Amino acid sequence: MEEIKVIKIVGNVINDEELLNIFLQQFAQVSGKKLLVHGGGKLATELANKLGVEQKLIEGRRSTDVATLEIVTMVYAGLVNRKIVGQLQTLKVQTLGISGVDGGCILAKKRADAIDYGYVGDIVAVDGMQLLELLNIFDTLVISPITADENGQLLNTNADTIAQSIAESLSKTLNVNLTYTFEKSGVLLDVEEDHSVISLLTQSKYIDLKREGKIFAGMIHKLDNAFFALKAGVKSVFLGKANQEADLLNGSCGTKIILDDE
Amino acid sequence: MEEIKVIKIVGNVINDEELLNIFLQQFAQVSGKKLLVHGGGKLATELANKLGVEQKLIEGRRSTDVATLEIVTMVYAGLVNRKIVGQLQTLKVQTLGISGVDGGCILAKKRADAIDYGYVGDIVAVDGMQLLELLNIFDTLVISPITADENGQLLNTNADTIAQSIAESLSKTLNVNLTYTFEKSGVLLDVEEDHSVISLLTQSKYIDLKREGKIFAGMIHKLDNAFFALKAGVKSVFLGKANQEADLLNGSCGTKIILDDE
Repeated sequence: MEEIKVIKIVGNVINDEELLNIFLQQFAQVSGKKLLVHGGGKLATELANKLGVEQKLIEGRRSTDVATLEIVTMVYAGLVNRKIVGQLQTLKVQTLGISGVDGGCILAKKRADAIDYGYVGDIVAVDGMQLLELLNIFDTLVISPITADENGQLLNTNADTIAQSIAESLSKTLNVNLTYTFEKSGVLLDVEEDHSVISLLTQSKYIDLKREGKIFAGMIHKLDNAFFALKAGVKSVFLGKANQEADLLNGSCGTKIILDDE
Repeated sequence: MEEIKVIKIVGNVINDEELLNIFLQQFAQVSGKKLLVHGGGKLATELANKLGVEQKLIEGRRSTDVATLEIVTMVYAGLVNRKIVGQLQTLKVQTLGISGVDGGCILAKKRADAIDYGYVGDIVAVDGMQLLELLNIFDTLVISPITADENGQLLNTNADTIAQSIAESLSKTLNVNLTYTFEKSGVLLDVEEDHSVISLLTQSKYIDLKREGKIFAGMIHKLDNAFFALKAGVKSVFLGKANQEADLLNGSCGTKIILDDE
């Protein structure tokens, strides 16, 4: 089966022009078809502050009112997506930038929850076949986490979840490698110690670590996504530093996530 | 030869949610493959004002400093492009939103002129074959006027010129109909009188009208583009009101632009 890589880039790299350059240079050298999923780092918050639009975080998630939806659409789908596409083109990677809105490739619905997160989308379906058609034309798709519901209402959607859902959808026909890049060198036994990387994390070990309180909020969401993805057929999931992209994908650094029965 | 329509939407329609809805509903009913080119209307100026970024117009063209480039990238490629794509998807039009940056489909260079317009792009080349490949997957491409140079530097580019350049590029293999929608019902003999539409405008008549001072700045740029496009092989050019899209394309309203020797 053909291989494909789905890579989620961390916000801190987007915030820092030099880090982004290093990341994209490594990314350009990774062979084969690739999808890069991004958010907007702190740029959306900075723009909101400049515009006097108050940002509310509910349990680590941005609450998205109309003004904030416009801001994230501008920053994620406009500024960040265009910059990344422009730079990859310069690195001779034929790149198309899309969001979940394009061709309805990611259908979402407004989150119905006891807590009102505003215009936040939960993913209903991913059109993996359409993404593959685009990957017949382009080496790389760069995907911003703006989706729409069936009425065309734009929705702010979690980029980690988008990466996971795309990986799952593509795993029906391809060997998918899903990589979450972030600030740390991997999943750490001691969050203060970057050298305490767990190189291999099984689900039972993960459950133990959660029970011992060693896994924290933001990481739990990532790892839950990772295990969901593996159960849904994704071949491998890696977590690690964005500027070690190449080593991450060959398994010489970072954390590899596997199901227990492998 | 297969037909294709390249349509430039006017800023005033983008500014007005109701007008945009009407336009897109008519647009959705126009048969065949279509490309819709847009700018951002006054939304970019409004955002610049909110952010305290001073906007300079030089001979009717926006001078684009770094802050303004970020603003137009966010508004054109982010907010406006995503909104239009979302709405067209709802109208069952399979739509992909791109800008000139994607796949390097429109290569530009920073304008070198006695007047410094800042990060403004002049078009070097359009990759019409790539656009056609995308139109094999999608019914419609929605194109925002952000381009990049060969170093990945984003550039703000005139949307009228983009529409013209795309039409010219596609005319090598297709019968291209290029339509500029705008506020007026067509090219007017008396600019104060919307019923004075010139239904057929030849180049010699245009030169006469310019000499008589009856054609004004903004219109001259549009009409110059129209005649360039016809000379380069575009089959027909129409100008008219955005909410008369369907009638415009069948020739029952607006102004049709032709070369003298037709």
